[in-house]
Amino acid sequence: MDKPVTTPERPPLDPAFIELLRALFGERLHLTEAMCLQHGGSEAHFATMPPDAVVFARSTEEVVELVKLCTAHDVPIIPYGAGTSIEGNTLAVRGGVSVNLSEMDAILAVNAEDLDCTVQAGCRREQLNEYLRDQGLFFPIDPGANATIGGMASTRASGTNAVRYGTMREAILSLRVVTPDGRDIRTARRARKSAAGYDLTRLMVGAEGTLGIITEVTLRLHGIPEQISSAVCGFETLQGAVDTVVQAIQIGVPLARVEILDDMQIKAVNLFSKLDLPETTHLFFEFHGSPAHVAEQIETVSELAAMNGGGQFQWSNLPEERARLWKARHEAYYAAVALRPGSVGWATDVCVPISRLAECVAETKRDLQTSTVPATILGHVGDGNFHVVFAMNPDDPAERAEVEAINGRLVERALAMDGTCTGEHGIGLGKQKYLEAELGEAVDLMRMIKTALDPKDLFNPGKIFAR
Amino acid sequence: MDKPVTTPERPPLDPAFIELLRALFGERLHLTEAMCLQHGGSEAHFATMPPDAVVFARSTEEVVELVKLCTAHDVPIIPYGAGTSIEGNTLAVRGGVSVNLSEMDAILAVNAEDLDCTVQAGCRREQLNEYLRDQGLFFPIDPGANATIGGMASTRASGTNAVRYGTMREAILSLRVVTPDGRDIRTARRARKSAAGYDLTRLMVGAEGTLGIITEVTLRLHGIPEQISSAVCGFETLQGAVDTVVQAIQIGVPLARVEILDDMQIKAVNLFSKLDLPETTHLFFEFHGSPAHVAEQIETVSELAAMNGGGQFQWSNLPEERARLWKARHEAYYAAVALRPGSVGWATDVCVPISRLAECVAETKRDLQTSTVPATILGHVGDGNFHVVFAMNPDDPAERAEVEAINGRLVERALAMDGTCTGEHGIGLGKQKYLEAELGEAVDLMRMIKTALDPKDLFNPGKIFAR
Repeated sequence: MDKPVTTPERPPLDPAFIELLRALFGERLHLTEAMCLQHGGSEAHFATMPPDAVVFARSTEEVVELVKLCTAHDVPIIPYGAGTSIEGNTLAVRGGVSVNLSEMDAILAVNAEDLDCTVQAGCRREQLNEYLRDQGLFFPIDPGANATIGGMASTRASGTNAVRYGTMREAILSLRVVTPDGRDIRTARRARKSAAGYDLTRLMVGAEGTLGIITEVTLRLHGIPEQISSAVCGFETLQGAVDTVVQAIQIGVPLARVEILDDMQIKAVNLFSKLDLPETTHLFFEFHGSPAHVAEQIETVSELAAMNGGGQFQWSNLPEERARLWKARHEAYYAAVALRPGSVGWATDVCVPISRLAECVAETKRDLQTSTVPATILGHVGDGNFHVVFAMNPDDPAERAEVEAINGRLVERALAMDGTCTGEHGIGLGKQKYLEAELGEAVDLMRMIKTALDPKDLFNPGKIFAR
Repeated sequence: MDKPVTTPERPPLDPAFIELLRALFGERLHLTEAMCLQHGGSEAHFATMPPDAVVFARSTEEVVELVKLCTAHDVPIIPYGAGTSIEGNTLAVRGGVSVNLSEMDAILAVNAEDLDCTVQAGCRREQLNEYLRDQGLFFPIDPGANATIGGMASTRASGTNAVRYGTMREAILSLRVVTPDGRDIRTARRARKSAAGYDLTRLMVGAEGTLGIITEVTLRLHGIPEQISSAVCGFETLQGAVDTVVQAIQIGVPLARVEILDDMQIKAVNLFSKLDLPETTHLFFEFHGSPAHVAEQIETVSELAAMNGGGQFQWSNLPEERARLWKARHEAYYAAVALRPGSVGWATDVCVPISRLAECVAETKRDLQTSTVPATILGHVGDGNFHVVFAMNPDDPAERAEVEAINGRLVERALAMDGTCTGEHGIGLGKQKYLEAELGEAVDLMRMIKTALDPKDLFNPGKIFAR
């Protein structure tokens, strides 16, 4: 079960360079195999690709010095947060220095009146929300893991609230970034909107550290809703579940969360979380607003559900009961992997226009039925985004090839429906072969930008596309 | 009152180049002085800067051919839509060819289930909304003028609905763009979200045609709300008006529109539109939703207004009555200019964090009181964005210098509050001197991107920043 380690042949780091690193970082420079392997690993199915050194940065100024040093010595730099990305986004494919930002986790400012805050890149999303709770504020973006805000920015993460509150693309007002030429820039001011020049904020969001190292993030926040209510509903058909969501969005119901779990996923959570949901497609809802408005939303959506073959609409606005209702969703990934003891999870995602979602999921389910590898489907149905989680035997090359083939067909299917090869995980290493199919010559523009900003190709090299 | 014409010394277009243009565009090539002056003019106070030729394009393929031709002959290309931009964004500072896209105004697809549509760049926003109305859909972004969608994308426009529905940054799913090297690319698929590589869509939005010529735009749409209600309320103080909006947003009232008009602006509209509003700061609201939810929003906001020194809350949900209530807002710009017969309007805008808005507006009003030039203030208060409209005598250089100085102090004030020098008009020519003050070395990154994508500096040269 140990992951293979891939270390392409390369010369060791120059001892003189190492001494300069040590002068900068002291005991926060790590050269041990264990530390390098940890930073060259990932939560996903990729081989481990360790860097040659790891440093723990404590300030933007230190990152600037590191960048100047690495650039002078032609050494790659890979920014590292919580290590929770799942397309191999932080693997050190050409070695170099992994710069761990997790100690830069300060919450620098909360501007309650402006509904924004500024945090260092290593701040984690749960830490931020705990800090904000007493002020009646929250930050909505919630990928499955307790990721760092910098990492979430770099992969353009989203999660279950995106249907109402958007993704990291919409959530970020401004970034502090260290560029490959060692500049320490702010991409924008704190105003809610601006028409001042190129949108460098959005250029850095989703660039996976290939154009700059994000050290600070200014985020939009939201007031905690007066009332939060949750609901769960099983459906006779997948189409009925999707139609319910499409109709609700069209008539303007501001769904805060709406998640779909297929029958296999429900089976998995019944086993894992000791639940007894009927083994059919389910929708998990959350509604935010004033009590009267939430009640109205629930009434509207439960009527739509009934018209589309939905069963009993279980709902609650009590926190414990809400947690119980959503337990199946929260534990979905672990439940999927637990379907097969000894397996590892291979999670992939695509996103399609919502009118094609039911068809895309149905075709994918038919494809999964041809496979011996257990797999579940769950998704952020309001966005047209869904995940397939395979419980794969990592030691069986044939099985790995089978999963790769199914993943390839899934992406082709999504692209044929005018969708994208990744809704929220980024390209990393795992989706590179599909990017060109998705965007064609537009990828050349990305290469031109990369070459202009990082001519030595030292910032997280080998990610998103080959140079 | 005729505007001065600025034509920097430059050689005339090569006759051989003109013949190649004629072969491509036939009668849609225009070389007359009248046509060139029209395309080198603007709605604003800038000198006219005519191109050497104007062509009317009818397809993306024609734009590709034009770009190849201009690049081969080192001739600048300036994309032109409705000509309604107000920072000199389309002036031909180095001559060249103005490519008018207004005949490319087709609505190519409306996907009602997906709440999106694709239009050619020359489609105008009112045309689009008339087309959508029968399907129960609307496109919310509404700059004052009936601009083209391509032009709105290029200046990152917004308008009165941005507080609820966002700006062109959020409204665009994908673009078709002709790049300086003659590629015809799509920046993204039609999925609602994607984590696939650099965000080329957002890079082109707000780039003012300096990185590519937008020929098609895929837009997010919204369902027409079941109920729309409007309200108007006068306030004892500016601070009270702003506090009402801040508090409403903080408790989660989804204001669809909220506009502020200062006492001078109210005076102007009373004169121009024959109204009799009390000459004090007013807020103009619009609420969208189900009847019950709209009633709840109005109740909440009218209570907040009363607590903050607001007067009687006049409201209506009947279309004619709503139009009457909003008349003062809709005619605000013309009313401001009409304050002084024979004047031209000089409109500027800034955007600050909303907590600083009252202070920024109050200081600006004090500054305006030192001037002899009549000026009004109106703004999208929910975003922290406001406009100053000067009714300037264009033939008086001293007055022009005075307006420039006030504008400079306004921008400095906004920047000191962590705001931006332009909320929704773009940089064009008018705000260039402030961009560096706002973003510092980040502007060098913009230059690097410009040089990488347009090495000959032929795409709308001289805009946003000097090379």
